[in-house]
Amino acid sequence: MADKSAQVQSISDAFRVDPESFDLAGVDPAATPVGPRSKSEAAADMAVIGRELDRLQEALYAEGTGGGDRRVLLVLQGMDTSGKGGTIRHVAGLVNPQGLRIASFKKPTRTELRHDFLWRVRRQVPPPGHIGVFDRSHYEDVLVARVDNLVPSTEWRRRYRQINAFEAELADQGVTTVKCFLHISPERQRERLIARLEDPLKRWKYNPGDLEVRSKFSRYQLAYSDALVKCSTPVAPWHAVPSDRKWYRNWVVARLLLEALRDLAPTYPEPSYDPAVELARLRDADPLR
Amino acid sequence: MADKSAQVQSISDAFRVDPESFDLAGVDPAATPVGPRSKSEAAADMAVIGRELDRLQEALYAEGTGGGDRRVLLVLQGMDTSGKGGTIRHVAGLVNPQGLRIASFKKPTRTELRHDFLWRVRRQVPPPGHIGVFDRSHYEDVLVARVDNLVPSTEWRRRYRQINAFEAELADQGVTTVKCFLHISPERQRERLIARLEDPLKRWKYNPGDLEVRSKFSRYQLAYSDALVKCSTPVAPWHAVPSDRKWYRNWVVARLLLEALRDLAPTYPEPSYDPAVELARLRDADPLR
Repeated sequence: MADKSAQVQSISDAFRVDPESFDLAGVDPAATPVGPRSKSEAAADMAVIGRELDRLQEALYAEGTGGGDRRVLLVLQGMDTSGKGGTIRHVAGLVNPQGLRIASFKKPTRTELRHDFLWRVRRQVPPPGHIGVFDRSHYEDVLVARVDNLVPSTEWRRRYRQINAFEAELADQGVTTVKCFLHISPERQRERLIARLEDPLKRWKYNPGDLEVRSKFSRYQLAYSDALVKCSTPVAPWHAVPSDRKWYRNWVVARLLLEALRDLAPTYPEPSYDPAVELARLRDADPLR
Repeated sequence: MADKSAQVQSISDAFRVDPESFDLAGVDPAATPVGPRSKSEAAADMAVIGRELDRLQEALYAEGTGGGDRRVLLVLQGMDTSGKGGTIRHVAGLVNPQGLRIASFKKPTRTELRHDFLWRVRRQVPPPGHIGVFDRSHYEDVLVARVDNLVPSTEWRRRYRQINAFEAELADQGVTTVKCFLHISPERQRERLIARLEDPLKRWKYNPGDLEVRSKFSRYQLAYSDALVKCSTPVAPWHAVPSDRKWYRNWVVARLLLEALRDLAPTYPEPSYDPAVELARLRDADPLR
């Protein structure tokens, strides 16, 4: 391969949540411990990452058309303004939209609430050969559901195990799950909320309920910490991504996606026909010539 | 607006199918009658188009979150190798994937065949605020269905009217439909099929059935011609896009999409709250400060 993104250490290793030792309080949302040191360095590397992602995504897509069942699922979670939308724009925007499936999980509808919490999620699992992105996910059911007491504690506590079983089932089906918690500080959230309110072109992203949620910041941190620790498994690890700097957040998530695809090493399927025979048909027996 | 794509004449006017006078045989698939004269000129303008599309798409998306029902549906049809996939990559790839919904219509499944031909199509209409792209569409039901006699002629003939009624209904629901027939010559198709067979990384795009379809090239041209003439309506016009040159095809479709969005002139919704009140809450009553 000609241009590969910087051969720094595994970014997955650097940010993966180890359930034995993880301490969310020890993760600095403004840190940039590995990789690019500046926005411009990151931008240059993003272009390189984009080219490699593009090649790998096409191979994955081709593999899927040939009957392969492998695919990638990127799960994005984080507080308001942590940048789920921005990450989709800048990271998912690097690849061919035809091979992409983006699903946003908002407040469940009445129909969705009549089913198990994983029902609506199962319907959005990306098909073979695709890269899926979840903008929020089944983790909301151990986050807002817990903080706002939407279900009894016995119920949300049971969900960690159900989620792990679900994600193990996905792995068995060929899904590589990459989970990213976009970690921002309350100070940075405040700045971004103010920016949304001050810019007429950003006001649509704000609603007064955001301040209610913000007032529960520390309770959410606790709920995230538990979800990350209880559901960071070998087949579907969590990553705590420092997200106070947008350029660093985007770079980390792009690298995590790249590493997942590199590990898959998707391969083009062998043709089910003989190319030489087909070429001869086109060259010697083409009715339109 | 700072940078706008070249103020050439309306590209929609230039390529729109006028049912009164359209003659497919008179459309040169290699023509470049308006706009950029070279690949490099087109590339430069695509960057400009991309920035304007991006702004307009964000406004459309915002409008949708504010209760607006408007959206855009780009329908791509064309013979094998005409570049439906390439157009999605290069045109849809210009916008934020979060506001995009891409649907591919392959050979109908058994479940789909048990319903009306529009059933599976209705399910893929983009939601308000989104740009939808159809990679093939309900037009297959007057193309392959006709050429291969999959249904009696009375049935496919009836479908033109049904399609026009369906598209008028979409217009009433706020959908701007932009239909593009990617028109290539049999010679160019032959070159591209050979290229697919010669390049190991492209062989997955080929299957021997492609030559069967190719042998019916002229019957397909007739079916396309009828579909274009019978279903180019004021609310959902067809465009015949010269597609022998990929760079020109991409530029034309990008411009058609841009013009559709310019015509919509989407607007950011008025906030349902008072920004000054919210700013005061954040500045003076922020519990996390």
